[in-house]
Amino acid sequence: MKALVFHGPGKRSWADVPDPAIQDPGDAIVRIDAVTICGTDLHILKGDVPAVEPGRILGHEAVGTVRQTGASVTTVRPGDRVLISCISACGRCRFCRQAQYGQCLGGGGWILGHRADGVQAEYARVPFADTSTHVLPEQVTDETALMLADILPTSYEVGVLNGEVTPGDVVVVVGAGPIGLAAILTARLFSPSRVIAVDPAPQRREMAAHHGAHLTLEPACGVVDRIAGLTDGLGADVAIEAVGIPDTFELCTRLIRPGGRVANVGVHGRPATLHLEDLWIRNVKITTGLVDTSSTPTLLRMVAAEQLDVGGFVTHRFGLPEMQEAYDVFGRPEESGALKVALFAS
Amino acid sequence: MKALVFHGPGKRSWADVPDPAIQDPGDAIVRIDAVTICGTDLHILKGDVPAVEPGRILGHEAVGTVRQTGASVTTVRPGDRVLISCISACGRCRFCRQAQYGQCLGGGGWILGHRADGVQAEYARVPFADTSTHVLPEQVTDETALMLADILPTSYEVGVLNGEVTPGDVVVVVGAGPIGLAAILTARLFSPSRVIAVDPAPQRREMAAHHGAHLTLEPACGVVDRIAGLTDGLGADVAIEAVGIPDTFELCTRLIRPGGRVANVGVHGRPATLHLEDLWIRNVKITTGLVDTSSTPTLLRMVAAEQLDVGGFVTHRFGLPEMQEAYDVFGRPEESGALKVALFAS
Amino acid sequence: MKALVFHGPGKRSWADVPDPAIQDPGDAIVRIDAVTICGTDLHILKGDVPAVEPGRILGHEAVGTVRQTGASVTTVRPGDRVLISCISACGRCRFCRQAQYGQCLGGGGWILGHRADGVQAEYARVPFADTSTHVLPEQVTDETALMLADILPTSYEVGVLNGEVTPGDVVVVVGAGPIGLAAILTARLFSPSRVIAVDPAPQRREMAAHHGAHLTLEPACGVVDRIAGLTDGLGADVAIEAVGIPDTFELCTRLIRPGGRVANVGVHGRPATLHLEDLWIRNVKITTGLVDTSSTPTLLRMVAAEQLDVGGFVTHRFGLPEMQEAYDVFGRPEESGALKVALFAS
Amino acid sequence: MKALVFHGPGKRSWADVPDPAIQDPGDAIVRIDAVTICGTDLHILKGDVPAVEPGRILGHEAVGTVRQTGASVTTVRPGDRVLISCISACGRCRFCRQAQYGQCLGGGGWILGHRADGVQAEYARVPFADTSTHVLPEQVTDETALMLADILPTSYEVGVLNGEVTPGDVVVVVGAGPIGLAAILTARLFSPSRVIAVDPAPQRREMAAHHGAHLTLEPACGVVDRIAGLTDGLGADVAIEAVGIPDTFELCTRLIRPGGRVANVGVHGRPATLHLEDLWIRNVKITTGLVDTSSTPTLLRMVAAEQLDVGGFVTHRFGLPEMQEAYDVFGRPEESGALKVALFAS
Repeated sequence: MKALVFHGPGKRSWADVPDPAIQDPGDAIVRIDAVTICGTDLHILKGDVPAVEPGRILGHEAVGTVRQTGASVTTVRPGDRVLISCISACGRCRFCRQAQYGQCLGGGGWILGHRADGVQAEYARVPFADTSTHVLPEQVTDETALMLADILPTSYEVGVLNGEVTPGDVVVVVGAGPIGLAAILTARLFSPSRVIAVDPAPQRREMAAHHGAHLTLEPACGVVDRIAGLTDGLGADVAIEAVGIPDTFELCTRLIRPGGRVANVGVHGRPATLHLEDLWIRNVKITTGLVDTSSTPTLLRMVAAEQLDVGGFVTHRFGLPEMQEAYDVFGRPEESGALKVALFAS
Repeated sequence: MKALVFHGPGKRSWADVPDPAIQDPGDAIVRIDAVTICGTDLHILKGDVPAVEPGRILGHEAVGTVRQTGASVTTVRPGDRVLISCISACGRCRFCRQAQYGQCLGGGGWILGHRADGVQAEYARVPFADTSTHVLPEQVTDETALMLADILPTSYEVGVLNGEVTPGDVVVVVGAGPIGLAAILTARLFSPSRVIAVDPAPQRREMAAHHGAHLTLEPACGVVDRIAGLTDGLGADVAIEAVGIPDTFELCTRLIRPGGRVANVGVHGRPATLHLEDLWIRNVKITTGLVDTSSTPTLLRMVAAEQLDVGGFVTHRFGLPEMQEAYDVFGRPEESGALKVALFAS
Repeated sequence: MKALVFHGPGKRSWADVPDPAIQDPGDAIVRIDAVTICGTDLHILKGDVPAVEPGRILGHEAVGTVRQTGASVTTVRPGDRVLISCISACGRCRFCRQAQYGQCLGGGGWILGHRADGVQAEYARVPFADTSTHVLPEQVTDETALMLADILPTSYEVGVLNGEVTPGDVVVVVGAGPIGLAAILTARLFSPSRVIAVDPAPQRREMAAHHGAHLTLEPACGVVDRIAGLTDGLGADVAIEAVGIPDTFELCTRLIRPGGRVANVGVHGRPATLHLEDLWIRNVKITTGLVDTSSTPTLLRMVAAEQLDVGGFVTHRFGLPEMQEAYDVFGRPEESGALKVALFAS
Repeated sequence: MKALVFHGPGKRSWADVPDPAIQDPGDAIVRIDAVTICGTDLHILKGDVPAVEPGRILGHEAVGTVRQTGASVTTVRPGDRVLISCISACGRCRFCRQAQYGQCLGGGGWILGHRADGVQAEYARVPFADTSTHVLPEQVTDETALMLADILPTSYEVGVLNGEVTPGDVVVVVGAGPIGLAAILTARLFSPSRVIAVDPAPQRREMAAHHGAHLTLEPACGVVDRIAGLTDGLGADVAIEAVGIPDTFELCTRLIRPGGRVANVGVHGRPATLHLEDLWIRNVKITTGLVDTSSTPTLLRMVAAEQLDVGGFVTHRFGLPEMQEAYDVFGRPEESGALKVALFAS
């Protein structure tokens, strides 16, 4: 079969590789129907994720059709159309038993396209299929389901739920890329009074407004003061960091009110400064997290009930064999205007 | 009357000052029966708290007898023996309505010995008496009650409750001064499996063991590895920071497990480094806070029921007029071995 | 002044009574601008609430203008337009300190039009004004604010928050009177997948659909089976009882899923049967409660931000002197179609 | 092998039956080293649990040694000494993913000795072994571990955690049989101010005092008034029902304070009366539940750390072939004084 193979920093190919096969009784072999590319895949290609070894098939967000299942698989069957979760769960370890699948100690967690071969391929082996896939209801399209593989549960769990968004809150989302936009969308499930998006790019601010931000701000324009002005001088109830650099994290800690929450979703490569000399007295709560995808069944139900409209995330569509071109487009968003790209098997 | 007056950095006197008088209908005038000195008072004397102006009477931890009450006071009466909370609560603002008295917007919060005259004096004016004092049951002595003015609710609320200590947890308390010891004591209310105290001073490690730490460690001796070794390599469930410097805070963030909590209690003067490059993926929760004293009624009930033994905190006792000497002793703990000092009116 | 006076079961008059006067330093005298009638007032008139003595002025839901304040009142001033909460809070007792104002031990709780004179009058004395009134933002009209005096916080706190409504939930509201409709409206703040209203009256089912119910059912038509059919045979996540009779309560306990919640809002006069022989094994949670009005500031913010549309509740409007006629109309809803009636001072 | 076989109401034998064999890849075959009898087994023998068919091997609380495992089992191995949980968990269904194993939809829940053959036998087949057994640390004896199969997690989860016991609380446990005693023991993990046990039998009240009750009361002696007298007239914070009859449940609802919690643990065969005419206004929370055994790892850690002393529960010990005699002794507790009986393989 064909798959997108990582050959070390800067090098990728759409190459012939052996077909995957069942290795464990909990495995499923899935024919990939639709797949997308994540910002993390670009990080891997830059060499930022040393755990990924040359020869690895990339990708952790896909929808497909089950072809074969191992002896112990009971909840999915050949022919089922499934969402492949970006997180695999052994279902047995301490963390899986607490629905913290992202921290799985039993061989799961984020493994697809990382420590095991991923889903940017014609077929994929999905370990722990019973606890790592979700059968899709008919009314949810492949493209819609793709948004539930990673970005929606990530923004919802790590941003909105960790941030404890509550009706009437003022919520600031810093960064209006795919994750930030999904945070805006899912924050609105809790009826905040205002969702304010902060991003330097005018195009992304427009997208933010389109996805439900009540107000959008340029970072350069005195964000802290603007938000203080809207909140009796107190600050926002919740700040969701969706960028991953020290400046935006520090901005989040400065714009929240006493008793407020900072929910970090961004993937950081460098330390940030925590201004404890100001914060120690302000009753703040700061959270970090990798997605657990424990919310995926709920999000799926809401998407199926048309409560969550994830249209608008996919800006470019390709055939599966156009993988290399899709990477080129997704890797140059300023130029291409790409948000999420989707690739479909024919 | 006599009172301990701050005259600017480095200068204090036990001086004659006018007697306090009712200014607002919610005030009470209290005769001070017992009072203690806080580490914060030493910071004020060093000039670290610029909001405190020369001429200010210091002190925010006392027990006394109500002498006079304003027209609207209904819950305490002249003759009542009361604990004066270190936090005053207007009882009316947004934060007081949510029991976050430390963040009071209506003129309360930490004001005694800070923005208003304090309690290291023969008499004190206590604003918002109805919501800022607690009538003491007979069986609780003045000395015991003093520990409830600040250190017990602070360690319990900002350390133990924010840290969400749960039966079976491994809890690390970094710093074994009065606040750290009170954190050890109150963490045990939730039956953690192990409480581990970290402090460089052998004497303080002994105190920690005496107050209930199951294990004590020197910071220099590979704390992170020792704790990993005790927790299947995962790290502690909760770390309580009770020092207030960058190093100890950063240690706390390194010794907790995925999904763990860092509860900062220490008063910080400088920023710390937050290693988001490691922490973003580890599902950690970091909290800060000023005490609200919302737990004081509960702690008082437990002390009265002899569930909490706060004996052993007071190492030195003085008469009220020996205030200057008490400050000298408390200010040189290495030499004097002082933990908390108590002064009693005759 | 004129006021609606209760003269014992079945007897009321719009009578001349003395003007109210400040009695305590915390009181405010408020000129009533708008007022409504509660189902509870009808119960009082039937003699169901023996604590209400003849001579009592009724009413606990009003909006007015502050005329005079006692010596200790600090947060409202003469001239302020305020919402008078149906619950008065001393702000000092154990329960008020936990924001459980409905259980106030210091002379508050539900006292207006019950143990103290109420607000169906030209003027009213409002005890504990600082903690029992809310200054209204300009953009919120008197009629809108009236809905926040009782029905919205009641349905939200006792129904929706106690019921722990969560995004994606299936919520059943049994009873589509004013409280049930407000429960539908406020449940939607948490984005349930479906809100299902149950009521025998076709007109009320229409209102329920208008206020946001996705589906409406007649109680006679196999409600339990219908809901099982919509939920993979499991039952609803949340049932909100908004009637107050044994049958509807028991229905609620039968239609929820394992792990579900029954939030009772109805005022009951008789015991119900609790089928523990079925329920003991089903992990259910049943809650009851009197409103605390702790959510009123949040609800007010949401109404001001046009997030909550409470239009449609008031079906009949009167001048204040038409109080008797308003009672007649409100007391015969089947005939008049009345939901809430509003009376306005000229 | 030999096993305790149910032959219909009133009939049991210690009979020869075929050895169990692996049926599913997730099964384990365990040699039973120690087993106990539950009150529920007596109910089955009376014919109260119609789902149990003649021919069924009874028993759901055991400790054993793994002999053989199915192809997909990864966390236990032949030779491992394991606790067999009374609840089996498929680990894959909606409820298992939320750690509500007692409500498992995938073939688990309470199945052992109920819908599948149980553990009162020389060998047992344990389905879903990865998620339904716990490897035992060396320092935990078989007899101690037996108490963790059912009674400790049941009292802790369904009584103490559902009842939200909090430091300083007044907790009443109604019924001082094995479950009630375990509730007293585990309630103390949260440092309540007082635990009060209510039971008619003097011997059981003595046991309650021995297991940590601060006060014991006879039901006939004005329990509600006595508790009101100890709580400023308010009532207890938490009542745990550990009997399973209408009277004791109703007592629980009468003895709690406004805002209090009733946690039902008892297995009920008849409906109770819920006095909503009193309770609707009192902010109570009532919970029911079957144990999930989600707390077993934590309880095991605490027992291993000697934080929980479960000594004293086992009053009679037998060899495994003395099963019939053990049933006789356990079935006549008034006569035998039996609390829990333990049977050991030689």
